[in-house]
Amino acid sequence: MQKLTVIKIGGNIVDDDKALNDFLQAFAKINTPKILVHGGGKLATKLAVELAISTEIVEGRRITSEVMLPVTVMVYAGLINKQIVAQLQHYQCDALGVSGADAQLILSHKRAIEPIDYGFVGDFTPQDVNIVRLKQFLELGLCPVFSAITADQEGQLLNTNADTIASNLAISLATHYQVELVYCFEHQGVLRDRKDENSVIPQIHPANFNQLKNDGVISDGMLPKIANALAAVEQKVHQVCIKSAQDLLKPTAGTIISQ
Amino acid sequence: MQKLTVIKIGGNIVDDDKALNDFLQAFAKINTPKILVHGGGKLATKLAVELAISTEIVEGRRITSEVMLPVTVMVYAGLINKQIVAQLQHYQCDALGVSGADAQLILSHKRAIEPIDYGFVGDFTPQDVNIVRLKQFLELGLCPVFSAITADQEGQLLNTNADTIASNLAISLATHYQVELVYCFEHQGVLRDRKDENSVIPQIHPANFNQLKNDGVISDGMLPKIANALAAVEQKVHQVCIKSAQDLLKPTAGTIISQ
Repeated sequence: MQKLTVIKIGGNIVDDDKALNDFLQAFAKINTPKILVHGGGKLATKLAVELAISTEIVEGRRITSEVMLPVTVMVYAGLINKQIVAQLQHYQCDALGVSGADAQLILSHKRAIEPIDYGFVGDFTPQDVNIVRLKQFLELGLCPVFSAITADQEGQLLNTNADTIASNLAISLATHYQVELVYCFEHQGVLRDRKDENSVIPQIHPANFNQLKNDGVISDGMLPKIANALAAVEQKVHQVCIKSAQDLLKPTAGTIISQ
Repeated sequence: MQKLTVIKIGGNIVDDDKALNDFLQAFAKINTPKILVHGGGKLATKLAVELAISTEIVEGRRITSEVMLPVTVMVYAGLINKQIVAQLQHYQCDALGVSGADAQLILSHKRAIEPIDYGFVGDFTPQDVNIVRLKQFLELGLCPVFSAITADQEGQLLNTNADTIASNLAISLATHYQVELVYCFEHQGVLRDRKDENSVIPQIHPANFNQLKNDGVISDGMLPKIANALAAVEQKVHQVCIKSAQDLLKPTAGTIISQ
């Protein structure tokens, strides 16, 4: 099977002009089919503050209210997406910026309002990905660049988790490609000791995951990330890599999650 | 040659929820290949006011300053483009929202700063349109939906005139398709008497244009529009139609500009 790389960059990279530019320059050099998914960063929150839109947070998670939704669409699908696309084109990467609504690449549905109403947030499964269209774009030599905005069947735009978009794209395309899913962030990988960037755990697999969890080495925000990564490799994704955006082109860097 | 319809909707339609929705429902019913180009409307100006960004106007035209550019990108390429795409998908039209930067569909350059510095504004010619890619998208059954944002070779995003995008797309594609270019706005067509919506001039062609101009029937803002339309039909565009958005599907409505 042909290789395909699905790469997600988080908000910390998007917010840092130099880090983003360095990343995009490296990303453009990957010469196998590839997809980029970008998070939103702090710009949407900053814009909401300037517009005097109050941010509601329930159990540590932001609510996408009716007034907040257009702000996220403007920032994620508009400004950040088009800046990334124009920069990638400058670096000779034939990027096509998309939301889930475009070419109906992802069909989502609004999250149930029970137990917590998160507002205009979209959920979807790997089955809701339009792999026929994505394959066509990839075969034309295009690099889809996804913002974390999708829409439902009624044409309602919905704010969607960028990690979920990356993993569901990877899982759905694993039937046609040998997929590597890469999460790029500001650390060297999954760290044994959060204060020591040299303490990267090189490999996580089902056999050592429970031990790492029980020892408290993997906890909090990293726990669902690793659980999702293991779920992805269970669903035929070749491997998941969590690494620093700076090390994108270093094959041995970061933490590899595999079967 | 196969028919292709390139339709531009102005800001007055984009600003009116019901008019826009009615238009999109009709647009989705056109069953030949089609491209939509949308203007921005008043939302960008409104957002600029809320963000305390002052709008500079020189000789009746707005300057796209460094702080205004991201506002136009957010509103045009983000919110308006994705709302239109999601709504068209709901109406079973396989829309793909794009800027000129996406798939490098349009390569523009920043307008010269002499005699007037309009700021981050992009210009381009029909030769700068990537007709190979556009044809591929059309042949896949996709409907490209253009916002009025383009980029130059350096990755600089630029605010671009939506009328120019529509006419340059039409001219460039006229070598491969029988192109009809349609400008939809809030009037019934080009009016002999501006106060009388029943005074539509049914046909304008090179032979009667000068007469209409000399009689003062066509003046002010309509003058460059008609001159551009005549230039388009001179460059192989089959015909240009200026009509009400409500009459999109009525073939005899509005003003036809042809050779």
